[in-house]
Amino acid sequence: MPKTVDHAARRRAIVEVAWTVIAERGLEATGMRDLARECGFANGALSHYFPSKGDLLRAAWEHVFERTNDRVATSTAGLRGLDALEQFCKQVLPMTPSAQAEAKVVLNFWQRALSHPDLAEINDTAMATWRAFIRRCLHEAQTDGAVTTSADFDIEVAIEELLAMLMGAQMLAILTPDAHTPLLQERMIAAALQRHVRTPVSTVN
Amino acid sequence: MPKTVDHAARRRAIVEVAWTVIAERGLEATGMRDLARECGFANGALSHYFPSKGDLLRAAWEHVFERTNDRVATSTAGLRGLDALEQFCKQVLPMTPSAQAEAKVVLNFWQRALSHPDLAEINDTAMATWRAFIRRCLHEAQTDGAVTTSADFDIEVAIEELLAMLMGAQMLAILTPDAHTPLLQERMIAAALQRHVRTPVSTVN
Repeated sequence: MPKTVDHAARRRAIVEVAWTVIAERGLEATGMRDLARECGFANGALSHYFPSKGDLLRAAWEHVFERTNDRVATSTAGLRGLDALEQFCKQVLPMTPSAQAEAKVVLNFWQRALSHPDLAEINDTAMATWRAFIRRCLHEAQTDGAVTTSADFDIEVAIEELLAMLMGAQMLAILTPDAHTPLLQERMIAAALQRHVRTPVSTVN
Repeated sequence: MPKTVDHAARRRAIVEVAWTVIAERGLEATGMRDLARECGFANGALSHYFPSKGDLLRAAWEHVFERTNDRVATSTAGLRGLDALEQFCKQVLPMTPSAQAEAKVVLNFWQRALSHPDLAEINDTAMATWRAFIRRCLHEAQTDGAVTTSADFDIEVAIEELLAMLMGAQMLAILTPDAHTPLLQERMIAAALQRHVRTPVSTVN
């Protein structure tokens, strides 16, 4: 009987190693041969799963996006509105060494997406998912009376501002870590969410 | 008499072409031979000025950063406080095709800076310059009474939030242009600056 190979498990095992290697060395410096050796595979086995570096980067990014979304799902379980949004921000912001490594994969992926429409489309869908998540949280907060429903509050602008801040923080935290510290990120989330909190009517007097 | 060569002018001429080519095709797809031809130089002449693609990218980024800062200097001449800050934001945000091309050079540069400490250091200095500019504008606005001086207002958080939003917008505008439009960016600036404006005491009644 031929040996059964669990291809999904093998693929996963490669990605688990590959994403950290890409984060550490960058895509250019990640050699397929070295990577195969680090995964304990023959070179041929690796290229069977990932014919090119582009395929590998795509899989690494998908893995990183899934990791982040898993953390978001866990940390927002049972929460809604601004509480859920706060947890979302904390999981997306690169406040830990592991999340900073994820941001490095994101930067490599974005750079490649500029000239690869298939990657750009994947990123587009991912960003749309996050915009929808932020929108849902803000709508919940409005329903609960925690955020104003006045016409002055432009929810689409609030969503885009927050998303841009989170994405910019991905870059600043890995490029200028001495200035863009986790502590400052914590204060940024607090300030960004605090400004949406509706002042209770009773304190207006 | 030997022909006099204006090396500075030649170098500048190459960079003028190179930055748009990098923006359009990405660094990997930018061939030194093709670029030399497009500049009207022999291949040898190009590598004399830029021995490697890394040198070229660095020069392209410096050119782009200078272009942006020139626009900022022109548009903020005679302005201070929040008025100057608004113009700064408008010049940094990729709201025009030309500024979007600049953002593509920035993304290529950031990706390479991850694994090249010399580029990371240049970026670090650039970001420090912009943090200082935002800080100066906010301090001027405080002096003029346009922004609160209350202890609740954390100027360092405000600087970092704005910088992160601007840098995130660089990415979103070139990666998800259908969602992150110039019109939305205009509204984002307005919202970001509006929240700092101090409510005049007379309207509190």
